[in-house]
Amino acid sequence: MPRYKMLIEYDGTRYNGWQRQPNASTVEEVIEKGMQQILREPVDIKGQGRTDKGVHAEGQVAHFDWPETLESDRFCFAMLGVLPKDVAVWDLEPVDEAFHARFDARQRHYRYQMVTRPSPLYRPYAEMILDPLDLDAMRKCAGMIAGTHDFESFTRSGDGNDNTECTVRRSELEVNDHLISYQISANRFLQHMVRRLIGTIGRVGRGKRSVDEFREMLEHPRTDIGGHGAPAHGLFLEQVEY
Amino acid sequence: MPRYKMLIEYDGTRYNGWQRQPNASTVEEVIEKGMQQILREPVDIKGQGRTDKGVHAEGQVAHFDWPETLESDRFCFAMLGVLPKDVAVWDLEPVDEAFHARFDARQRHYRYQMVTRPSPLYRPYAEMILDPLDLDAMRKCAGMIAGTHDFESFTRSGDGNDNTECTVRRSELEVNDHLISYQISANRFLQHMVRRLIGTIGRVGRGKRSVDEFREMLEHPRTDIGGHGAPAHGLFLEQVEY
Repeated sequence: MPRYKMLIEYDGTRYNGWQRQPNASTVEEVIEKGMQQILREPVDIKGQGRTDKGVHAEGQVAHFDWPETLESDRFCFAMLGVLPKDVAVWDLEPVDEAFHARFDARQRHYRYQMVTRPSPLYRPYAEMILDPLDLDAMRKCAGMIAGTHDFESFTRSGDGNDNTECTVRRSELEVNDHLISYQISANRFLQHMVRRLIGTIGRVGRGKRSVDEFREMLEHPRTDIGGHGAPAHGLFLEQVEY
Repeated sequence: MPRYKMLIEYDGTRYNGWQRQPNASTVEEVIEKGMQQILREPVDIKGQGRTDKGVHAEGQVAHFDWPETLESDRFCFAMLGVLPKDVAVWDLEPVDEAFHARFDARQRHYRYQMVTRPSPLYRPYAEMILDPLDLDAMRKCAGMIAGTHDFESFTRSGDGNDNTECTVRRSELEVNDHLISYQISANRFLQHMVRRLIGTIGRVGRGKRSVDEFREMLEHPRTDIGGHGAPAHGLFLEQVEY
């Protein structure tokens, strides 16, 4: 049966994350319901990975199988008519029948946004930080993250993931006037990892932790640290590479 | 009495524009109410200029007089506590007593945003255009606008403004993946001018008007054209120069 890959953007504010679950509205559920409306049959979609409650996505990926030919523009336009305004499918393409949105993903890119002044326009999409920030110290921490590390200090302890090693290709802080963007790309991410990394970097920026303490957490991973997690609404899943 | 200049950002979605009016919520009114709460006296603020219903601002400017010394961080932080979440004062500075937010403004910068795919994250802040666009034709029109012209074809007829000449310093279309930004800076703008300009450029992009027709509107201004206005929610007052 032909397989299709779709690209999905959502404002995560109203959702309990990506993954379908009982008694809570999730993006996966909303998309499956929309597809059932336009395709007239239930469809099971497989996402690239979860995003947490409140996290946004510009390039979430999911695949599904469908016996008939689907054309991207028509499909996306039809979905626009049935989906709520905060979720959209913006691209669809036929892929190999062996393609798997989760297992074939090679790199994930996340962006975390902070604003350093009161900003109503960024309010739903960035963490507002009005304390003075030591950007140099934050850049030092961000720079250390690139490479292969055991990120056990920066995940939810007891999440049952035995392998806590990830290879980070990019980890950079970009400052543009009052907007600070943290960009991170890796082959895989542990649960809560981006928010714990940038949350801890933010504490270094505010002078509540030192650069050396951050290095220690990275070089001598421990489960009992209780890394500080940044709020979900600043985080965007930007892109997934295959 | 000391005079202060403040910088204001707002999400215009819920407001009937900047200027105070009876029976409608406006940004000016909300700010004056907030200031009365923290200063314990009514204050009259003078804005740089109106923005229309639904238009956003990152750098709206207003001035006011106040007998006591006000410190920027404290004032902005206090305002954060009393203003609704979609309006913020993000900077305050003492200015010369002769300073006037409206009459001393030399340049205004506006940005108009369009997205060319379904985009929930840009939905409140950009016009969604799913028709194919002739970007070259749009760029040609944008390029013609720079310089001094009579913009009578691109304002509300009968708005009572005798002088319809404006000098445009910058008029550019920037394309970044699925986001198109139109940037325009001028010494002054007529009512509805930016939205009528970009609305007409958008019609050229969709093939509903020609580049020559656009040139004709610019070179031989007429009041009876009924230029096509783009929706308010894509427009941002970015910055005012003094």
